[in-house]
Amino acid sequence: MTTRPTRQLHLNAFLMGVGHHEAAWRHPRTSSADVTDVRHYQRLAQVAERGRLDSVFFADGLALRGNVRHNALGGLEPLTLLAALAAVTEHIGLIATVSTTYNEPFHVARKFASLDHISGGRAGWNIVTSASEAEAHNFGIERPTHSDRYARATEFLEVVTKLWDSWEDGAILGDHHSGNYADTDRIHTLDHIGPHFRVRGPLNTSRPPQGHPLLVQAGSSEDGKEFAARFAEAVFTAQQTLADGQDFYADLKSRLGRYGRSEDELLILPGISPIIGSTEREALQLERELEELIIPEYGVHQLSNILGVDLSDHPLDARLPEVPPATDGQQSRVKLVTDLAEREQLTLRQLIGRLAGGRGHRVVTGTPEQIADQIEEWFVNGAADGFNIMPPVLPGGLEDFVDHVVPELRLRGLFRTDYEGRTLRQNYGLARPGSIFDQKVPVAS
Amino acid sequence: MTTRPTRQLHLNAFLMGVGHHEAAWRHPRTSSADVTDVRHYQRLAQVAERGRLDSVFFADGLALRGNVRHNALGGLEPLTLLAALAAVTEHIGLIATVSTTYNEPFHVARKFASLDHISGGRAGWNIVTSASEAEAHNFGIERPTHSDRYARATEFLEVVTKLWDSWEDGAILGDHHSGNYADTDRIHTLDHIGPHFRVRGPLNTSRPPQGHPLLVQAGSSEDGKEFAARFAEAVFTAQQTLADGQDFYADLKSRLGRYGRSEDELLILPGISPIIGSTEREALQLERELEELIIPEYGVHQLSNILGVDLSDHPLDARLPEVPPATDGQQSRVKLVTDLAEREQLTLRQLIGRLAGGRGHRVVTGTPEQIADQIEEWFVNGAADGFNIMPPVLPGGLEDFVDHVVPELRLRGLFRTDYEGRTLRQNYGLARPGSIFDQKVPVAS
Repeated sequence: MTTRPTRQLHLNAFLMGVGHHEAAWRHPRTSSADVTDVRHYQRLAQVAERGRLDSVFFADGLALRGNVRHNALGGLEPLTLLAALAAVTEHIGLIATVSTTYNEPFHVARKFASLDHISGGRAGWNIVTSASEAEAHNFGIERPTHSDRYARATEFLEVVTKLWDSWEDGAILGDHHSGNYADTDRIHTLDHIGPHFRVRGPLNTSRPPQGHPLLVQAGSSEDGKEFAARFAEAVFTAQQTLADGQDFYADLKSRLGRYGRSEDELLILPGISPIIGSTEREALQLERELEELIIPEYGVHQLSNILGVDLSDHPLDARLPEVPPATDGQQSRVKLVTDLAEREQLTLRQLIGRLAGGRGHRVVTGTPEQIADQIEEWFVNGAADGFNIMPPVLPGGLEDFVDHVVPELRLRGLFRTDYEGRTLRQNYGLARPGSIFDQKVPVAS
Repeated sequence: MTTRPTRQLHLNAFLMGVGHHEAAWRHPRTSSADVTDVRHYQRLAQVAERGRLDSVFFADGLALRGNVRHNALGGLEPLTLLAALAAVTEHIGLIATVSTTYNEPFHVARKFASLDHISGGRAGWNIVTSASEAEAHNFGIERPTHSDRYARATEFLEVVTKLWDSWEDGAILGDHHSGNYADTDRIHTLDHIGPHFRVRGPLNTSRPPQGHPLLVQAGSSEDGKEFAARFAEAVFTAQQTLADGQDFYADLKSRLGRYGRSEDELLILPGISPIIGSTEREALQLERELEELIIPEYGVHQLSNILGVDLSDHPLDARLPEVPPATDGQQSRVKLVTDLAEREQLTLRQLIGRLAGGRGHRVVTGTPEQIADQIEEWFVNGAADGFNIMPPVLPGGLEDFVDHVVPELRLRGLFRTDYEGRTLRQNYGLARPGSIFDQKVPVAS
């Protein structure tokens, strides 16, 4: 922490129900009815915007995962929700998770184009391929293999970006006098024919303000990293140690050249769940309160799902048993969990406690200065371009971060005092892509 | 107009870009940039709410239909847009069109459940089966036949309603003390297996506030009417004459009994495009202004599409030629147009002028009293339970309706002065369905 970098941190608020801690809904600082209350999420987006964070983000799955008996699940579909947040905010970016495995490119292109118009250029898409068996069963198919899912995702992205490009910038004339609304020479069919999709186009929503809504990705498998290097502009990742963070960062950035991209065209944001107190004692107290609310059988159930083994008969206070090789597409998640248990010599109960906070993401407990130290350390040492902030309880954990950690980051010259631009791309410092159909690709940013 | 009915009219504002008239975007009362401006639509929803209308509604298609060279197309996806309107309104119902042919039931159930939560019980779904060839080409399939589309739609509705029912009312306990968030005995898998869909469930969004979002339909074919009689709670229809309106009304209501439903469980709302002036002269002036802005080649293109024949070489001032039998699924639309041309002995140019106002819906030009007369006549004579209001220009045409026609309807005792309830169902006077999984079906309305 000797150099004072001129580059700026990017901060995304990862919003999940009433908090990322699995027992958050039982804590006195939350209200479990907020899970389906739009006013709760609107307030969170406004708090994030007050802190000048770059964006808010919602994860998503297409099945009722986990055990709803003991967790506050059953919330809202992110893309629909974000349109309601766009209406009560002006600057904050709005990132929704949508699967390429169980959707059609035309719908996805159109909904994100619409959200981008509605928000004035603040839409982002977290691209997922939906790993779970339970999701496949809601769409009447056998779960495709990991490589099939990524092959489909790749073609999906080709089609979606072409649909966004199908109206060139400047295609709309709006000439009342002549009666020419659009220059139809600048609105294009794609006539895409590929192994997964046949899409004629053009899109029936005009070109999004950002050209393309921001593309975000979070897979850490080999396929996932290659996909990110090709398409993603921001990557959310889970790394527990600085060394792992640096390795991931260097690895992913080194892949960009193959796709003709430079290192600053992709931002890497590791997840961090900050348990914040005015004093270290207060922070530890909050951490303990949350741990005491964990229902062990629920934690065992969750962990069994991650590892693909039934741990329900395993003693809670014994070390984690040997785990067989991971099933298709879950390798990086399983490795992260088994490495953590091994490195810190955790019992099953302790491991459940550690995972309850961030499902494999790093949990940092301390004062605002201590949290800022951790953020700065990773940022200046080649492990992060910013962070994916995962408050343990909501709204309180986000308010604590914005009111106490953000000012500390500003004092250190690490974080903005005001937004740089009007669009999500501008605040992330990323260029606006031109249309592939445009003969004179615009230089606007 | 002798009896003073105690039943109340229902009014839906059918919103389309900058107006239903095809030349609306060229008229000085509109701004064509509004087509993708969320503030335009938010203002329209607020105007409709100020008038205490039941709902706003957006049609939709999944291809760039018509000729964008001469019309202001390329607007926003309705479901995403409605979430942004929910955020700035409190009472107005929000109805979006979504196709059953090019979607999956799990997504549609979840998005409408989410919109219903976000709006506090104001969501409605206009169910369409997507008749056009152009839409099929954006999803890589050959267009299914009319009967195949309706067979899929029927199974689609079975699955969607079961998904909404999959969380019984009362399934959420939220018991912080015991750690029991939900009673999992009251959250159900469907294990639906049918010719079109295999869906396990449950939904991963909890039961919508309305039980089921309101189901709306607009098909007038034999299959369409049968589908409406089985599922729909409101029907938007296009009828040009009182006699045709009465026939359609009696026909559709008579079909309800077969499905164990009573006549008041389905509302029929014919479309009407009111061209309003303070005097008849002013109204006719507005109508003429709009007609003069029509681009004949665009009108011929549209009419050719509807009739399935190329009319581009037909003289504009000659009568409409003989038209061959309609293609699959367009019979009712073609009959409506050819009947209109025949009944009023219209030339091609005149027919284009008549269709430009409402695409086959009734256009009524006059003072607020004259518009109200027409509405009252149909309402008291068994042709309508309310109307689907299609303003020729937006926002002005909706403001005129709310400020001048609605007060006249109130003076006649036909329309509410305040909302009856908090949900769309309550304002439409329709019961809240219980869950099919619920042992003790609730009587709440």
